[in-house]
Amino acid sequence: MTSTAPVATTSLRFSRLLLTGAAGGLGRELRRRLKPYCDTLRLSDIADLGAAGPGEELAPARMEDADAVLEMMRGVDAVVHLGGVSTEQPWEPILQANIVGVYNLYEAARKLGTRRIVFASSNHVTGFYRQDEIVDARMPMKPDGLYGLSKAFGENIATLYWERYGIETVSLRIGSSMPEATTRRMLATWMSYDDLERLVMASLTAPVVRHSVVFGVSDNHTRWYDNRYGDHVGYRPQDNSERFRPAVEAKEPVLDRNDPATVYQGGWFVRTGPFDN
Amino acid sequence: MTSTAPVATTSLRFSRLLLTGAAGGLGRELRRRLKPYCDTLRLSDIADLGAAGPGEELAPARMEDADAVLEMMRGVDAVVHLGGVSTEQPWEPILQANIVGVYNLYEAARKLGTRRIVFASSNHVTGFYRQDEIVDARMPMKPDGLYGLSKAFGENIATLYWERYGIETVSLRIGSSMPEATTRRMLATWMSYDDLERLVMASLTAPVVRHSVVFGVSDNHTRWYDNRYGDHVGYRPQDNSERFRPAVEAKEPVLDRNDPATVYQGGWFVRTGPFDN
Amino acid sequence: MTSTAPVATTSLRFSRLLLTGAAGGLGRELRRRLKPYCDTLRLSDIADLGAAGPGEELAPARMEDADAVLEMMRGVDAVVHLGGVSTEQPWEPILQANIVGVYNLYEAARKLGTRRIVFASSNHVTGFYRQDEIVDARMPMKPDGLYGLSKAFGENIATLYWERYGIETVSLRIGSSMPEATTRRMLATWMSYDDLERLVMASLTAPVVRHSVVFGVSDNHTRWYDNRYGDHVGYRPQDNSERFRPAVEAKEPVLDRNDPATVYQGGWFVRTGPFDN
Amino acid sequence: MTSTAPVATTSLRFSRLLLTGAAGGLGRELRRRLKPYCDTLRLSDIADLGAAGPGEELAPARMEDADAVLEMMRGVDAVVHLGGVSTEQPWEPILQANIVGVYNLYEAARKLGTRRIVFASSNHVTGFYRQDEIVDARMPMKPDGLYGLSKAFGENIATLYWERYGIETVSLRIGSSMPEATTRRMLATWMSYDDLERLVMASLTAPVVRHSVVFGVSDNHTRWYDNRYGDHVGYRPQDNSERFRPAVEAKEPVLDRNDPATVYQGGWFVRTGPFDN
Amino acid sequence: MTSTAPVATTSLRFSRLLLTGAAGGLGRELRRRLKPYCDTLRLSDIADLGAAGPGEELAPARMEDADAVLEMMRGVDAVVHLGGVSTEQPWEPILQANIVGVYNLYEAARKLGTRRIVFASSNHVTGFYRQDEIVDARMPMKPDGLYGLSKAFGENIATLYWERYGIETVSLRIGSSMPEATTRRMLATWMSYDDLERLVMASLTAPVVRHSVVFGVSDNHTRWYDNRYGDHVGYRPQDNSERFRPAVEAKEPVLDRNDPATVYQGGWFVRTGPFDN
Amino acid sequence: MTSTAPVATTSLRFSRLLLTGAAGGLGRELRRRLKPYCDTLRLSDIADLGAAGPGEELAPARMEDADAVLEMMRGVDAVVHLGGVSTEQPWEPILQANIVGVYNLYEAARKLGTRRIVFASSNHVTGFYRQDEIVDARMPMKPDGLYGLSKAFGENIATLYWERYGIETVSLRIGSSMPEATTRRMLATWMSYDDLERLVMASLTAPVVRHSVVFGVSDNHTRWYDNRYGDHVGYRPQDNSERFRPAVEAKEPVLDRNDPATVYQGGWFVRTGPFDN
Repeated sequence: MTSTAPVATTSLRFSRLLLTGAAGGLGRELRRRLKPYCDTLRLSDIADLGAAGPGEELAPARMEDADAVLEMMRGVDAVVHLGGVSTEQPWEPILQANIVGVYNLYEAARKLGTRRIVFASSNHVTGFYRQDEIVDARMPMKPDGLYGLSKAFGENIATLYWERYGIETVSLRIGSSMPEATTRRMLATWMSYDDLERLVMASLTAPVVRHSVVFGVSDNHTRWYDNRYGDHVGYRPQDNSERFRPAVEAKEPVLDRNDPATVYQGGWFVRTGPFDN
Repeated sequence: MTSTAPVATTSLRFSRLLLTGAAGGLGRELRRRLKPYCDTLRLSDIADLGAAGPGEELAPARMEDADAVLEMMRGVDAVVHLGGVSTEQPWEPILQANIVGVYNLYEAARKLGTRRIVFASSNHVTGFYRQDEIVDARMPMKPDGLYGLSKAFGENIATLYWERYGIETVSLRIGSSMPEATTRRMLATWMSYDDLERLVMASLTAPVVRHSVVFGVSDNHTRWYDNRYGDHVGYRPQDNSERFRPAVEAKEPVLDRNDPATVYQGGWFVRTGPFDN
Repeated sequence: MTSTAPVATTSLRFSRLLLTGAAGGLGRELRRRLKPYCDTLRLSDIADLGAAGPGEELAPARMEDADAVLEMMRGVDAVVHLGGVSTEQPWEPILQANIVGVYNLYEAARKLGTRRIVFASSNHVTGFYRQDEIVDARMPMKPDGLYGLSKAFGENIATLYWERYGIETVSLRIGSSMPEATTRRMLATWMSYDDLERLVMASLTAPVVRHSVVFGVSDNHTRWYDNRYGDHVGYRPQDNSERFRPAVEAKEPVLDRNDPATVYQGGWFVRTGPFDN
Repeated sequence: MTSTAPVATTSLRFSRLLLTGAAGGLGRELRRRLKPYCDTLRLSDIADLGAAGPGEELAPARMEDADAVLEMMRGVDAVVHLGGVSTEQPWEPILQANIVGVYNLYEAARKLGTRRIVFASSNHVTGFYRQDEIVDARMPMKPDGLYGLSKAFGENIATLYWERYGIETVSLRIGSSMPEATTRRMLATWMSYDDLERLVMASLTAPVVRHSVVFGVSDNHTRWYDNRYGDHVGYRPQDNSERFRPAVEAKEPVLDRNDPATVYQGGWFVRTGPFDN
Repeated sequence: MTSTAPVATTSLRFSRLLLTGAAGGLGRELRRRLKPYCDTLRLSDIADLGAAGPGEELAPARMEDADAVLEMMRGVDAVVHLGGVSTEQPWEPILQANIVGVYNLYEAARKLGTRRIVFASSNHVTGFYRQDEIVDARMPMKPDGLYGLSKAFGENIATLYWERYGIETVSLRIGSSMPEATTRRMLATWMSYDDLERLVMASLTAPVVRHSVVFGVSDNHTRWYDNRYGDHVGYRPQDNSERFRPAVEAKEPVLDRNDPATVYQGGWFVRTGPFDN
Repeated sequence: MTSTAPVATTSLRFSRLLLTGAAGGLGRELRRRLKPYCDTLRLSDIADLGAAGPGEELAPARMEDADAVLEMMRGVDAVVHLGGVSTEQPWEPILQANIVGVYNLYEAARKLGTRRIVFASSNHVTGFYRQDEIVDARMPMKPDGLYGLSKAFGENIATLYWERYGIETVSLRIGSSMPEATTRRMLATWMSYDDLERLVMASLTAPVVRHSVVFGVSDNHTRWYDNRYGDHVGYRPQDNSERFRPAVEAKEPVLDRNDPATVYQGGWFVRTGPFDN
């Protein structure tokens, strides 16, 4: 595991942070990046997390298991919730992990008095907007599949639990957080890992967030998202997908304008599924 | 059963309409009111529907049973979906009837090619707006409980199935459809049964609706909702709660301004639940 | 010619009004309706206008003939401009009558100091909005054909001549002004002749209009237009297409949802032309 | 004094209401109209109020006298504040009555725990909008003189005392409340006394108002104001200036378009003052 | 001819691009700048284009000649249309080149199946907004002269041909593209040639544009335009007029605030013409 | 007194500038910074200004003294008005200095024909917005105390004197202009002195401002303000509070979320006063 110096400027430090989905792509990246900001980093996933490193503790839990989720949440200052299904899949796993599971998460937070959740939502909550439309956090949701639908559910439960119980959430509508932008669509949706770290730390430490929604992309030249309603969170991206443009365009010189995956922000998600035919 | 002359001006007539939740309060009212507009009115509920009358047929189904829902939907021109849970309740019944159930409904529509669904959504989708705020159909959802959360899910799945599969929905954010307005809050939220009929028939017959959202209230003096984005549906309420004002105010002369049920549009829903403590 | 009592409440009276396009459908109707509001009604058209009646004078002119237009405009207090092409046609006649012609009209107004023009624009200026969209006067133009394009030109020249020369215009985006609504689309776009008269007289007499845009429809239940930005003009429609609904729906019980003429506000205009293939 | 039956539909009744400015034009009208809604109507003015009638009590006070205002406010349920200067005047009287005076009013409310104030603001708070602009309660203020400036101050202090101390206000941007509309401008700004009574009673009895702003005009054909953000107050005007149009236009057939009083909503206020030249 | 390395980051390459107006000021600049992005650059103008260089071909055409325009357009992948009149001029040349000519251009694109047009529109489409107003692409057009009127026509036909025929356009509302900013007004409207190249290439290569409108200015400190609705095009200016400020202000230390050319964004265009008096 | 090179890029130079409040914190900073931009810098305050330096002249005046203010204003090209009360204080000093005083200032400008005023308004004009809300210059004022209320009055009188008398103002809603950001709140509200100078000079020299409102903050990562409606003024901040974050967070690691000073943008101002209890 490569050691990384923190990139976010905050000096705030948490006693115990919970990172769910810690065995996934973003989870592994954040596992090493969040550690410097807390005394103890609790990690959860249903996949293998390997051994706990220094200052780490393991708390695997299935999101659909309310009791396990309650145990997983006990004693943490805040949660970065990447757990659950993170791609378009059939209804049943999405229902269990992302609907029942997120309900369990917020119920646990209510019972335990957890103060803040950083929720990995997705650009697929608004994936049925076209690529020539600029979307902000107050425009109506337009999910592009069952996955996006489940993330929309998560954002709505975040609003509810703020209004009723005072649990704060920042929902991150993450674009494509990868080492490199590798498709034409990703020139707009790409977020570097450094910017991901900046965004997560800003979301964890901003003083007043209630339920805020921020689009998680780098400072790309091509922009589909207007982050104005999340400016108070203090996320300022430093990276830009433009350096990947030549390679990406060389690989995909021609796009089929009649393909919904070209037209809509959600890309190929918009023509996926259903899985149960 | 009282015979009623139709109040909507449409002359369009359906071969077979499906009315779900037909044994509930609104269901019984619409059962007799929708009959004149169709050859066959198929009725569904999990409660007792009594005997089928002339031109009626019974098709009871649990919403969480995908196969039953598919059978219930077979052969209908359009659906008026009142079925499922219609009050604040614990998570499990709401999950089954209003989340899994609505997913089953739209999957059945997709498989069968059903063209239009009139979905009984609720003012509780936006119940955490205050009573001095004017809400329109494009403002962010603010559900006031698990029931409102499930209706928000239903509206989002309606958007998804329109965008992906071309199934049209009109979501009716129904206020309080009752014979009379009986509380201070209902002076704003009341919808007469005649206006309910007008709204449902406009929603069934408007030529182009994609997924439209209309607030279901009468032409009350006190208004919280701005229906501008649903004007194309052609709903024009004719009734008004004002005649109930003297009796209502006499019954509730004083309101506790510190009670969230006074402050928020959702009324007592905002301080209900959770049920599982 | 039937005698009609004025329906507008104004008592203002013009010395000399010019009505162009006076031999057309709306022109014949307004010819008899405008007479009571002026001492002299000057009539212009390229079609036969018959003999001048009492208080009438004839001034035929081709709109593309700048000199003739200048003569036609001499000495009038205000103009109601219905002249030119009023349906989708090939480019050349539209260019001559509705682009060159309207330029000639405004140039004449500038030279003569004419104070106000009521310009018969059209709903086809925004005909490529869908029938589930609500359009107001500030939203971008979306013309549905060459006719709509020429009316958009007319509205823009009206703005220019207001800003630069102080000539006031009310542009009326007329829907379907006919004796009866006879199609499903016209349930939204219909304007009665009485409402047309109300609208024209309000536009002629409102104190301050600069360049205002008003959608010319009756108070129909189905509405696509939001007239808020023209409220100062004082047009209050009194009629409603709803009484035509049963006959219209009986004639057109089924609409082809895949037909652009069903989807878009412009109706069949959106799939007309070009004429020169 | 003519006896009047109440026109508002409310049955709510106050123990003691305070009406300031009770000797002025609107004050005398409301004096007899508010009596039926309360046990005791306390009246205040610096002009002669005559003798107290049954159920009336007199409490004259100069608004700039903080102690007198405190006494005037003691023991009342709610206030209808018409007091102070109500026309364009020199700075000193406006400063004393409408700025210092209104500060005294809100300080008294804070000290005494008064719950609600109906504040007679004015259309002159936005009088420098043009007559072809439609103004709503969220648009920036554009006062047309020192009087409008002082009413803007009053609205701002109402916001402050709501946010900080929980004192509710409805600010009424009253147009021209007179027996008849007598000028062209008043066709837009007129409010009948019956509608004034409806508006004041709705403002006193609406359950949740925080600080709401409502434009006080009747349902006139010519409209400059969009009351959407005050719809929750429940004011529904029943009168219309249109019946005065013929007489008004006969009296003022021609308007000078170059006169700011014609162009701006504030009418002749916009070219009044300063008084100290 | 100076050789220039491309400044846009795209690696996409066109087989044949058409540049119209290639002999004008911007045309000469783009002639050398566009060459590296295509195999063949076809050049058109009515002025002398000199000899074709390597990879260039000449196709002179008068825009008002439909047949010539059709030939000019044959076989090109995309068009950068700078042709026609580019300053305020009398009606007849503007009518021929910018109205009839642009109609011919779009008709040719329709017949030939041309996919995308980059249309040199102008800030004069909105030139009658004041210099203290911030304009975005959805605000109503306010042309400041016949030239701006013709560019407004061009933008509207671009919308029409997208909606009806699927021809994509990016309309560039170009400010002042010059080597240097030389007037106070140009501190806001200036666009460097490098930024012009960036903008044109982004417009040619963005995947989904339908009809998009982008204001063509550099990243100047003084801004009148809000480009939010064109962010998906991916134009990110790199230059700034601020370095010209000292020289410009020294040359124009005093502005006449009563001069419309100072007040309005269109500058001296707003007080030009008509030419035919 | 440290000598400073000008940081603003303007080369415009004033004959005589007036700086009020020149003995206060910002006043002392601007005293040395404004000198290079004018021949004579007139300084005013009620506190000791020390001796006049080269090119300086002293003109002490109490703002509530109309005659003194008139003398102070005589012969100046423009005014930078920092004078008056600049913190939350009791009503009487605020009334005298910030309400009566600002009225005196604008009356003097009217009498003397002063062209432009740069008015030090305050973020406290909108201090009762929450820290998760993004505020722009057109949103309704929400003053957080008597100080904010007086600044709101100042902005309204600036609108009035522009509309009626053509006196231009730029109102600067200054955040926290200090050498360093020293609190969590100041991470959002901080403005460096260099940026203050840039803002003041842009406000003095922008060609067309009428009454413009600009939020005075640096380019901080955490943003509460949207300056879009002031972009024409040309203020482009160059500094950023982020470098103070570690020290600030170390000093204030924990915030009391129930403290209004944490929730609202106004900080501790929202729970100050009244002073006269």
